[in-house]
Amino acid sequence: MKTKLPGIAVASILCFSTIVQADEPIQPIRPTQEINLAQVELGKKLYFDPRLSKSGFISCNSCHNLSMGGTDNLRTSIGDHWQQGPINAPTVLNSSMNLAQFWDGHAADLKEQAGGPMANPGEMAFTHMLAVEVLQSIPGYVNEFKLVFDTDKIDIDQVPQAIAEFEKTLVTPNASFDQYLLGAEDAISTKAKAGHELFKTSGCVACYNGPVVGGNSYQKMEVVEPYQAARPAERRVAVTGKDADRFRFKVPTLRNVELTYPYFHDGAADTLKEAVDTMGRIQLGKKFTAEENEKIVAFLKTLTGDQPGFTLPILPPSGDRTPRPTPSK
Amino acid sequence: MKTKLPGIAVASILCFSTIVQADEPIQPIRPTQEINLAQVELGKKLYFDPRLSKSGFISCNSCHNLSMGGTDNLRTSIGDHWQQGPINAPTVLNSSMNLAQFWDGHAADLKEQAGGPMANPGEMAFTHMLAVEVLQSIPGYVNEFKLVFDTDKIDIDQVPQAIAEFEKTLVTPNASFDQYLLGAEDAISTKAKAGHELFKTSGCVACYNGPVVGGNSYQKMEVVEPYQAARPAERRVAVTGKDADRFRFKVPTLRNVELTYPYFHDGAADTLKEAVDTMGRIQLGKKFTAEENEKIVAFLKTLTGDQPGFTLPILPPSGDRTPRPTPSK
Repeated sequence: MKTKLPGIAVASILCFSTIVQADEPIQPIRPTQEINLAQVELGKKLYFDPRLSKSGFISCNSCHNLSMGGTDNLRTSIGDHWQQGPINAPTVLNSSMNLAQFWDGHAADLKEQAGGPMANPGEMAFTHMLAVEVLQSIPGYVNEFKLVFDTDKIDIDQVPQAIAEFEKTLVTPNASFDQYLLGAEDAISTKAKAGHELFKTSGCVACYNGPVVGGNSYQKMEVVEPYQAARPAERRVAVTGKDADRFRFKVPTLRNVELTYPYFHDGAADTLKEAVDTMGRIQLGKKFTAEENEKIVAFLKTLTGDQPGFTLPILPPSGDRTPRPTPSK
Repeated sequence: MKTKLPGIAVASILCFSTIVQADEPIQPIRPTQEINLAQVELGKKLYFDPRLSKSGFISCNSCHNLSMGGTDNLRTSIGDHWQQGPINAPTVLNSSMNLAQFWDGHAADLKEQAGGPMANPGEMAFTHMLAVEVLQSIPGYVNEFKLVFDTDKIDIDQVPQAIAEFEKTLVTPNASFDQYLLGAEDAISTKAKAGHELFKTSGCVACYNGPVVGGNSYQKMEVVEPYQAARPAERRVAVTGKDADRFRFKVPTLRNVELTYPYFHDGAADTLKEAVDTMGRIQLGKKFTAEENEKIVAFLKTLTGDQPGFTLPILPPSGDRTPRPTPSK
């Protein structure tokens, strides 16, 4: 059976650049295109595999849960031995389009990011050497790495490479706001449209723009008012050493923000209402009225796109010589 | 496109009862039939939802991981605040066909089981009242419960009901041993066939039989030799108070046993080789040779069936008034 594209979608493809208004700072997010599918399938397994942690209990998906907007919906994450992380877990959704990874941008790309938590004593608490030793002892993985990377020996470099390739597929197109941008006037409510106007005229859009609606710059937090953080956190200055970066964080994405609560680097804001109110005050020196707040929140909810849809991966079983996890040590 | 059944499968359906030998104590496991699909879809979400735990970090799938044979592959599970459980987590796969749930059979069925870990302070550490309060505050769940159960108010009874209905779908048909039972002579190796014979003639089959290959009786452990357990565990006597049950456990299923390591109620045996050796000694007073052990293991590996294949569920987001998880309290 042939799938017939609805008229509006065909029109969108043909007139993509003309339908989006010239002065619109947000662009529709495009579905993933160039991809290494074999690496994606391997990376998906690794993403869900808790054997990459010391305890055998924590996988990438524990804190970047793809059932929950690619986050854990906790203020800060839980790591090995129930340690509490220092900063709110950013969503993995659309993260391949960020200018860098982590709140302070200390990883250049997803591949560099993916190796981090695995070896962080407060998160997965493993080492890269042990992770490779585990994978190399699992017959199913040995075969799959051989087929995907054409090598007999698994290299630690290949692990984050495959995970990052999978993560590139975690793009969420087709948000109702994108449908609207592409010409479907009725895809969002009048209230959301008013929220979109307010979002632009109030200045939010200075930081939150582009296809990712954020993720493309480092910006100062506490522009107008200080922010009383629930816990201190590394900012951009920790990476660059530059005084100008002392108050800067990478701007998080607003895509799927309805799903990625709680908000801010300390996860202190439970609701969009609270986050919009705080950002208005500390960044724009503006107290949004209840009505304005509602409109902006209605707009933000139109940024929820199609969530990743894939079959739960089945992991290859450990072999007789696979080192066993040590959750109690 | 019409799916054409291969000849052998058609023959199997027609001659099901005649192909399986009259004296064969193991029967092919049948795929799930009568099911409430609406409850299944709701139950699948609940199964993956960590908001049913106090911490917001632990879901049913944390310890009965459907990527890993419906277990956590740990000796004993990790619960709230990294507590270590007292007993090895049994697989959820095919568990609807067990005569009762838990190692000591203290829950009559899956519905009764599903409520247990949620309120166990060492596991999900929540209360049923709080769980319902959370669900009732999530608009997506309120709608879905209304559609599924036709009520405005979520009842705690409905939560394990839906989870249990989902769990009924976690049946793993089509193991190569089942194909063999259904007439495909070459579906298993000569070594596995020899292992199957040994399994029957050595007496293993006395406890491990039926479609679940176990799960249908309580049996004494340590029949011939005592077992030095890594940790003490409640046995059947804790439920019945009968002296005869002092050494009894529910016999676990051998379906997918290749995936459900480590073995025994204390998870002390890391490999099938070790488990077969120990069971031979303590239950049958028999020291299997290396060759015999290999044959039995080869047979056991033919019991791995089709693993559950479904799209990772996307959970409805919390509402503004949803009580937030408290992982650090």
